[in-house]
Amino acid sequence: MREDKIMRTVRCRNDHQPGTLAQLLMSIAHFGAEIGEIRLIQETPRHIVRDITIYADDQEQLEQILQAMHANPGTSVMAVRDEVLELHQKGKIAIRSRYQVDNLYTLRRVYTPGVAEVCLRIAAEPELARQYTAIGHLVAIVTDGSAVLGLGDIGPVAGMPVMEGKAMLMETLVGLSGVPILLDTQDVDTIVETVAAIAPTFAAIQLEDISAPRCFEIERRLQTRLKIPVMHDDQHGTAVVTIAALTNACRQSGIDLFSARIGQIGLGAAGNAIGRMLVKHTGNPVLGADLSEDALRRFEADGNQRSTLQEIMANADIVIATTGVPGLIKPEMVRPGQIILALSNPVPEIDPEVAVAAGAAFAADGKSVNNVLGFPGILRGAVDAQALRISREMYLAAAQAIADLAPNDELVPNPLDKKVHQAVARAVARTAIQQGLAGNEFVPYAES
Amino acid sequence: MREDKIMRTVRCRNDHQPGTLAQLLMSIAHFGAEIGEIRLIQETPRHIVRDITIYADDQEQLEQILQAMHANPGTSVMAVRDEVLELHQKGKIAIRSRYQVDNLYTLRRVYTPGVAEVCLRIAAEPELARQYTAIGHLVAIVTDGSAVLGLGDIGPVAGMPVMEGKAMLMETLVGLSGVPILLDTQDVDTIVETVAAIAPTFAAIQLEDISAPRCFEIERRLQTRLKIPVMHDDQHGTAVVTIAALTNACRQSGIDLFSARIGQIGLGAAGNAIGRMLVKHTGNPVLGADLSEDALRRFEADGNQRSTLQEIMANADIVIATTGVPGLIKPEMVRPGQIILALSNPVPEIDPEVAVAAGAAFAADGKSVNNVLGFPGILRGAVDAQALRISREMYLAAAQAIADLAPNDELVPNPLDKKVHQAVARAVARTAIQQGLAGNEFVPYAES
Repeated sequence: MREDKIMRTVRCRNDHQPGTLAQLLMSIAHFGAEIGEIRLIQETPRHIVRDITIYADDQEQLEQILQAMHANPGTSVMAVRDEVLELHQKGKIAIRSRYQVDNLYTLRRVYTPGVAEVCLRIAAEPELARQYTAIGHLVAIVTDGSAVLGLGDIGPVAGMPVMEGKAMLMETLVGLSGVPILLDTQDVDTIVETVAAIAPTFAAIQLEDISAPRCFEIERRLQTRLKIPVMHDDQHGTAVVTIAALTNACRQSGIDLFSARIGQIGLGAAGNAIGRMLVKHTGNPVLGADLSEDALRRFEADGNQRSTLQEIMANADIVIATTGVPGLIKPEMVRPGQIILALSNPVPEIDPEVAVAAGAAFAADGKSVNNVLGFPGILRGAVDAQALRISREMYLAAAQAIADLAPNDELVPNPLDKKVHQAVARAVARTAIQQGLAGNEFVPYAES
Repeated sequence: MREDKIMRTVRCRNDHQPGTLAQLLMSIAHFGAEIGEIRLIQETPRHIVRDITIYADDQEQLEQILQAMHANPGTSVMAVRDEVLELHQKGKIAIRSRYQVDNLYTLRRVYTPGVAEVCLRIAAEPELARQYTAIGHLVAIVTDGSAVLGLGDIGPVAGMPVMEGKAMLMETLVGLSGVPILLDTQDVDTIVETVAAIAPTFAAIQLEDISAPRCFEIERRLQTRLKIPVMHDDQHGTAVVTIAALTNACRQSGIDLFSARIGQIGLGAAGNAIGRMLVKHTGNPVLGADLSEDALRRFEADGNQRSTLQEIMANADIVIATTGVPGLIKPEMVRPGQIILALSNPVPEIDPEVAVAAGAAFAADGKSVNNVLGFPGILRGAVDAQALRISREMYLAAAQAIADLAPNDELVPNPLDKKVHQAVARAVARTAIQQGLAGNEFVPYAES
């Protein structure tokens, strides 16, 4: 499911004849297009109506596919819908009142004059704000639009659909209120000053889709300054889910993560965070390769070792690639018995099937490492514990919780399973408490 | 309903005997306490259970009242509830998804991979952001907490319950999504830079509870810089509703607003905005009195004239007081036939009954001028028209719409009547279009 494909939902009425659907799918497959969900809409003795989701590479291919579908014997194309765009009409999130304000009785309680007493109580005892305002569940989702998905520097406004998607997932999976904040600047100082200035509004700050190396400094400076958790998801969220997947890949292929030689190719935002978390987790330095001298220095500063693509491929038991370079790893470079996680989206450094055919014991691409598994529970746990920051130990506890809940034959669990996110939240909060990073009273997160 | 009172809801079980409730209310009145809503909860042949809301001046008075209620023959106090605080538990607003994300089918449409196409479309055509993101209905509610209600400089976090109240009203009355933004600074430059930096997120900026004179400069500089409406509610919202009330006060007392001599006592944030809007509306300069030379200069710069308290009381046909000084206007200062709006909360410059007894043709206090009538419709109209800013003409159109919808014997309409807010929104949007201040396509606001 490549991120740069065009997604359309085509409603087709097929004759109720065995083979009509198969023939239709064949005619789509002929163009190399992917087919997604197929939903049964209506069935009559003579016809079957289905919604078929197709993914085309470009507009031209889309037209060819639609023509082929039209031409299929026994098929009539009823409608072509851009459901994605329809779902985005007016945006995907809204601020809602938790009560109806439809009479003066309520108005006087939630607004003047009643509200004044609540204000005065908080003024006298600021900690009460967590209890009597929305601050306790508001999380800023901050972006400058400099590294949105794999799309690059498309600007903050064009990144808004992603920020809203994150906010939807926060609400759906852990009940947090994510507030997108689009920054009209890519200057590090201005970003730090701006986020610090609005920080009293929030229980945590999630930095999102901010390009390296600025993301490192922004996160570090904000976390030093603020007493609420600051998390750059593209670093730590990715690292957490990668380590969870790696843990299960090791289990499934009989390799011991703690004694294995691990190599990383690509040390950008995600690669850097993975390396930092891995050396903490295993106690052994990771070998890393990158074209940027700065990236290598950062990697070494975390206690890891610089290496090269060739050395890593030749010697490492585990290879983690986050380079953004499609097809960087050639089949002949694979060392037999290696675990290879080729995580770049939309196209991995090596196709998992190709890697296994070349002798890898185990291989997976970025589809197996879904960020959605990480950030909701991590933030919920940190917020519940009123943690001052999110430590590596808290991130590792999240990774372990995710790994533990994967089905036996999978790397990671279903990202929409709320029980997973609750388990992550509890593990993160528990670790915060053990480390003395938690504030005040702690009430563990449970589905409300 | 004073803003600094303590509100409690007392559940009482009274004997089903004529006079028991009357006796109980008498015993409360004995302490000079106000009684609010009385709700019938349960009725049996022997008892009647009621929730009685009382407003006490302080904790001591509250205790005395509760003791007296306990002691009333035939009354048993079942519970004393702080309903206001209960309603504020966990805050009053939340970010909600507009769709359930409970399956991969939806996840792929609202998040990756589907979202990428929407991002790219917006990157290519930024105006589409209004259509395909929440930006078109997000309004920042920005405060530095320097002048919250009548409570003064209690800080932004303590002001949060008010900001959430505004957000609730925006959603309930006109379907906008108000996002509280609490600023960790009271420095004018920092506030302007911060709000400008996060402005791409929003369709409009509402400044709230920021003290004068900083509020004037902050609004002016932000509006100069941004191409979305910036509105300081304490100035313009108050002015709009005041002019609506004044219009109906004139109608009811047979005074011609356009030829009357108007005087204002108190030229702070609200007074200043009222004066500026009035001179535009009537074409005649307003007389103004204030202790601050700066305030008088600002007033003159708007085309109005400086005067004194004594001169205004002696000569003006209409007096508008916004001083914050309780009882400033003595009965002997009232000129027979005057209209007096003594708007300071919680205690007016002169009690309306006292003013009328002293010869005023008409008098009202701040309770008659409810800000809730203004900001929701004004912002909705400005956002719908994609107005670049909110002009005085747009504010005056809002005032006229509010005045027109008041019942014959009232100054203003019911603030919770959605039809009023729709009418205000349409009037504001129409005026923006007439003035050439509207952007792109305009779709008038209707209840969705």
